Amino acid sequence: MGSIGNVTPQAMHFAEPLRLESGAQLADYTLMYETYGTLNAARSNAVLVCHALNASHHVAGTYAGDPKSTGWWDNMVGPGKALDTNRFFVIGVNNLGSCFGSTGPMHVNPATGNPYGAAFPLVTVEDWVAAQARLADRLGIEQFAAVMGGSLGGMQALAWSIMFPTRLRHCMVIASTPKLSAQNIAFNDVARQAILTDPDYHGGDFYEHGVVPKNGLKVARMVGHITYLSNDDMAEKFGRKLRNAAESNEYAFDFGVDFEIESYLRYQGDKFSEYFDANTYLLITKALDYFDPARGFNGDLTKALAATSAQFMVVSFTTDWRFSPERSREIVEALVSNRRRVTYAEIDAPHGHDAFLLEDARYMNVIRAYYERIGAELEAA
Amino acid sequence: MGSIGNVTPQAMHFAEPLRLESGAQLADYTLMYETYGTLNAARSNAVLVCHALNASHHVAGTYAGDPKSTGWWDNMVGPGKALDTNRFFVIGVNNLGSCFGSTGPMHVNPATGNPYGAAFPLVTVEDWVAAQARLADRLGIEQFAAVMGGSLGGMQALAWSIMFPTRLRHCMVIASTPKLSAQNIAFNDVARQAILTDPDYHGGDFYEHGVVPKNGLKVARMVGHITYLSNDDMAEKFGRKLRNAAESNEYAFDFGVDFEIESYLRYQGDKFSEYFDANTYLLITKALDYFDPARGFNGDLTKALAATSAQFMVVSFTTDWRFSPERSREIVEALVSNRRRVTYAEIDAPHGHDAFLLEDARYMNVIRAYYERIGAELEAA
Repeated sequence: MGSIGNVTPQAMHFAEPLRLESGAQLADYTLMYETYGTLNAARSNAVLVCHALNASHHVAGTYAGDPKSTGWWDNMVGPGKALDTNRFFVIGVNNLGSCFGSTGPMHVNPATGNPYGAAFPLVTVEDWVAAQARLADRLGIEQFAAVMGGSLGGMQALAWSIMFPTRLRHCMVIASTPKLSAQNIAFNDVARQAILTDPDYHGGDFYEHGVVPKNGLKVARMVGHITYLSNDDMAEKFGRKLRNAAESNEYAFDFGVDFEIESYLRYQGDKFSEYFDANTYLLITKALDYFDPARGFNGDLTKALAATSAQFMVVSFTTDWRFSPERSREIVEALVSNRRRVTYAEIDAPHGHDAFLLEDARYMNVIRAYYERIGAELEAA
Repeated sequence: MGSIGNVTPQAMHFAEPLRLESGAQLADYTLMYETYGTLNAARSNAVLVCHALNASHHVAGTYAGDPKSTGWWDNMVGPGKALDTNRFFVIGVNNLGSCFGSTGPMHVNPATGNPYGAAFPLVTVEDWVAAQARLADRLGIEQFAAVMGGSLGGMQALAWSIMFPTRLRHCMVIASTPKLSAQNIAFNDVARQAILTDPDYHGGDFYEHGVVPKNGLKVARMVGHITYLSNDDMAEKFGRKLRNAAESNEYAFDFGVDFEIESYLRYQGDKFSEYFDANTYLLITKALDYFDPARGFNGDLTKALAATSAQFMVVSFTTDWRFSPERSREIVEALVSNRRRVTYAEIDAPHGHDAFLLEDARYMNVIRAYYERIGAELEAA
């Protein structure tokens, strides 16, 4: 059981326009993607892995010459891993509007010759799924063995099950929610306000000013980061430890760094602001806010999920207060009301929302067992 | 049972220097305060009410000609109210470094002739208590019937009980904590980063630039505000309601306002940024972060509270996730270990941390009953 080793991203260009939920249209676009493993002759072993806010198509493996470039779900995806690339053909796609190669705000708007900036149309989870489906068409995948994702990725999996019921046999929704709460939206809006009011944002056209709204992005990331961690885990890892504890263990009495937790979050915020695009952050938080498949059904999630025909695996984590187990149970209950086959696991893990990305034996075993079932079905077919 | 009516703030100047915990010193300073009710002949019926982050000495009543200027705890303090001004002599003091009249960052630094700005020394909860004690000296109050506060105000009450054990008979600690958690500190630091990186902050010297760091203050207040409300209460009041629901009920597909919760928080943030001082916000969040009476006792709160001799009332609210009931119970347990007399009430209220400021029959009855006991002791004395 090891890493899949070196992998290579690929680009697929789509010349056909994509009509978006907002009514806007992308004249053409490119999707970056990676694949691991081999598509079988029946084309029945493909698994689509959908990414969350700040991740990408680079799910597993590393890039040649850059041993630190490990994919974001490398602990989950690889030869002999829970999602076994010896058995499955795994696809990661960078979503439209993201900043890792797929068409997004930093790319040239063919209509103006300048970068889109804030003029890049807002995209929804459903728009992403529509674009992913076109990629699947091109790759000759009529039906996925599974579509899987955590957090915002789980929303995409859920949207797949509604929009293309017959194109996936299994839908795996991890650490997700059928819709954001007011509190979730509030945190997203704090992040957006921090970016939008940073003078270096320049109304989204910061590229041509040769700057990035680093301060805004940093604050946005810091507040987001807090919601990814559990209160208990933060208490255990950081507590009230002072950064200078080894030297003086005294308060600094200024606005620099006193506590380890400040140092950690600022550092992570700084790092994030160096690689992540501000316009992408804005539009992805809106995609999160907007996701609500029950919206067209007067808030009735059971009705929204009536169109599905996949089998489901839903996973939540006990200390996740961003998308708590209660939110996963709403999905499970709506599925059960529709008499769908659904496996639900509530993992007792200390790491809050981030748990879906972390190594945890029970979690990995649950996913592994589920994929063994999918694999057995494959072989029986 | 009504409002106390028109009240008048007073200023008391202190020419004696105040040595602060940081080692810095204020050469002289002024405290704004208000009093309600009448000090009895025995000078035994005084109650000090300590304020939290954004409040002031204006605890109850209104200012003449400004009927909207109701004090922040007017529902608690007044004739016939839970803290009955017919019986008690109530004092509210604006803390040092705040922005409602007591000496603070916007006042002139006698050493430079310019406003202090970020050069105003960081003050601690203990510094505030030391300054309050001097005010009590001047008012001829040797011993308070009670010192009472909510949130950061509760920290001051707790500090009183440790620093001046014989100067209060009752200590009332509401919706508070013996120290901030890593998560609490993290949220405070997000707020500080938003202010510090706002270009209009000008390193704290924005006064002389004729601007205020409104955007930073707005973001700071928004993130703070989220932590004051409970998740459930936010869900009930705002949920996913769209602001334009009456007209179109469609998403806007831009970065303006879609949801009511965004509109509410931005509005509150804007309002806050118009009246609150940015340097004050910074220094008060540091006072919160620094409070930790057990720090000098190797983290042992029981030892920290061994010096106390008051009787205690501790109150928490079930849906308060900023300073949860668990944090209040830590105080109660440490007091019980010291064999202090302590009354603890955990109020089942939906409004999160803000509950301590809101009308709630059970809450008010508990406080009223406790003051009746204090009043009975007064009469028996």
